[in-house]
Amino acid sequence: MVRLKTIDWVDGGVKIVDQTLLPLELVYERIDTVEQMYLAIKILKVRGAPAIGIAGAFGCYIAIRDYPETGSCNDLLELLVKNGDYLDSSRPTAVNLAWAVNRMKHKARDLAAAGKVADVKKGLLDEAVAILEEDRAMGRAIGEHGAKLLEGVDAILTHCNAGGLATAEYGTALAPVYVAAEQGKLFTVYSDETRPLLQGSRITAFELQKAGIPVVCICDNMAATVMAQGKVGAVIVGADRITANGDTANKIGTYGVALLARAHNIPFYVAAPSSTFDLTLATGKEIPIEERDETEITCGFGKRTAPVGVPVFNPAFDVTPAALITAFITENGIARPPFSESIRDLVG
Amino acid sequence: MVRLKTIDWVDGGVKIVDQTLLPLELVYERIDTVEQMYLAIKILKVRGAPAIGIAGAFGCYIAIRDYPETGSCNDLLELLVKNGDYLDSSRPTAVNLAWAVNRMKHKARDLAAAGKVADVKKGLLDEAVAILEEDRAMGRAIGEHGAKLLEGVDAILTHCNAGGLATAEYGTALAPVYVAAEQGKLFTVYSDETRPLLQGSRITAFELQKAGIPVVCICDNMAATVMAQGKVGAVIVGADRITANGDTANKIGTYGVALLARAHNIPFYVAAPSSTFDLTLATGKEIPIEERDETEITCGFGKRTAPVGVPVFNPAFDVTPAALITAFITENGIARPPFSESIRDLVG
Repeated sequence: MVRLKTIDWVDGGVKIVDQTLLPLELVYERIDTVEQMYLAIKILKVRGAPAIGIAGAFGCYIAIRDYPETGSCNDLLELLVKNGDYLDSSRPTAVNLAWAVNRMKHKARDLAAAGKVADVKKGLLDEAVAILEEDRAMGRAIGEHGAKLLEGVDAILTHCNAGGLATAEYGTALAPVYVAAEQGKLFTVYSDETRPLLQGSRITAFELQKAGIPVVCICDNMAATVMAQGKVGAVIVGADRITANGDTANKIGTYGVALLARAHNIPFYVAAPSSTFDLTLATGKEIPIEERDETEITCGFGKRTAPVGVPVFNPAFDVTPAALITAFITENGIARPPFSESIRDLVG
Repeated sequence: MVRLKTIDWVDGGVKIVDQTLLPLELVYERIDTVEQMYLAIKILKVRGAPAIGIAGAFGCYIAIRDYPETGSCNDLLELLVKNGDYLDSSRPTAVNLAWAVNRMKHKARDLAAAGKVADVKKGLLDEAVAILEEDRAMGRAIGEHGAKLLEGVDAILTHCNAGGLATAEYGTALAPVYVAAEQGKLFTVYSDETRPLLQGSRITAFELQKAGIPVVCICDNMAATVMAQGKVGAVIVGADRITANGDTANKIGTYGVALLARAHNIPFYVAAPSSTFDLTLATGKEIPIEERDETEITCGFGKRTAPVGVPVFNPAFDVTPAALITAFITENGIARPPFSESIRDLVG
């Protein structure tokens, strides 16, 4: 089974899958400078919150690795902060990017206290590798809990891409599928294409096909028919933010899929690491929903498909009320209703 | 208000909107030969079941209009049958095309009995014009019943194109919107883009924009959010076939929209002429669902958007159970539950 390594540290450089070329070509790119990393994040060669965080961390290390060992720790710190802020500006709204860059800055300050430049540099590489490894372990743990939960299910439906290509390796929503495959069980995955940006057909279908896992592409509006025909036993999606009561913001279309799953008595699972839970927000009403450019809908893939000047409504996310969610799959285990308690116990 | 004339008889020729150029250009084409009409139907310059029927009828007339008045009625009939079958073969599964061509053949046989070629020719032109006028009147009547039903509603959601461009002029699902506009009331119409062929963004949005009716394009997976935000007071869709109990086959995605409408307590209306009701079928289980080519999904926007070789599920239609339908809007009036009785009374 080929499970793609979205981002990895190989021979003193970062190796990424260039996701702008998917699904037509699988091209790995080596990144050796901070400018290359900035661009890779900015133009979505690397995408998905966890993967971007890892990219930012390695970018920070690359920015200071050639700093002379004869230099001062203070100047090194200054160089790191400047380049960290630069990397951070590549996608200003990506929470994981800011989080990873900050973690690198804190680590550098701690290490700099001892005054040895060589130790700071080595420590920063170790920290970036740790962020990568933690993400891989998180995906693997979600996968193990999820695979157990899905015993008896043969086929699932997913929306958007919360797969390996959004993280270091296993993903979140697709992690149970990959872990089950390691254990010898192949799920069939129905992949909503996920308009407007088609992450489902471009990315989810690609990574599953590469891994040898049966995948079927459908348009978003076919999910109800797939469910009515009894083709799937569960829905699993990822999440962008989960509030204290279990309301879940995720890619636009997720809420509709949750309603359809409920109408067909199909369990609806959200797979996400504990870092996605935001217990400072009580309910989904507090989550702001970004609206994106109309051209994503009117000129989606190189060709205009709606009249010039027609108004468009293009919310990037929606909020699925907790009441439609059967359970959360996290690296710490499964949270079931009542969620206000189970979420606090699991990730609080 | 510019309400487009999809197909019309003007100065001794057929004038159609070339729908293959929508939404980028509005180009009218004049059709003077049966070969031109065959091609126009085959490559979807004219589309939508009622519009194709009208095209077929005029095609039959064009095929025989230059037949010499000194000829025999029998030879004229033979010429008509040959060309009718030829036109019929342009889209073999279009029920309305075969229906209209047959109606022209029957009319010709009736008229030929009197033995005058000139009368047969004139009668066939009158019959084609009658088919056009009946369709226009049908749309207008659906529009009047629908506009009354929608009093108090300001915005609706529709799926696919059951508008003027699928018929002679008013359409079915959009007829109430056009009639209301004539009466001085402008609905806002949320138009699902309707993957894979995007009839919603390419055609529905185009004709409403042309008519000066407020329209908002959304991706299919945004309908649930539009409903949750209280933006629409009703859903109206067309239909391909309706069975005796009210189960309704329509463009893929309709069933999902009906489930979402029910979850949000929004009325879900089906607008269709009585010819769409097939009382020989008891329930929707008897309606065969055509599956279409995978490239509609994988290469839908002029560019490949899914990996080569990935399996695809591409049903062209789905069946909405009668239980999810609030009422049918027909040219004869409104049918409400219990549908087995009301449908029989209205269109039986």
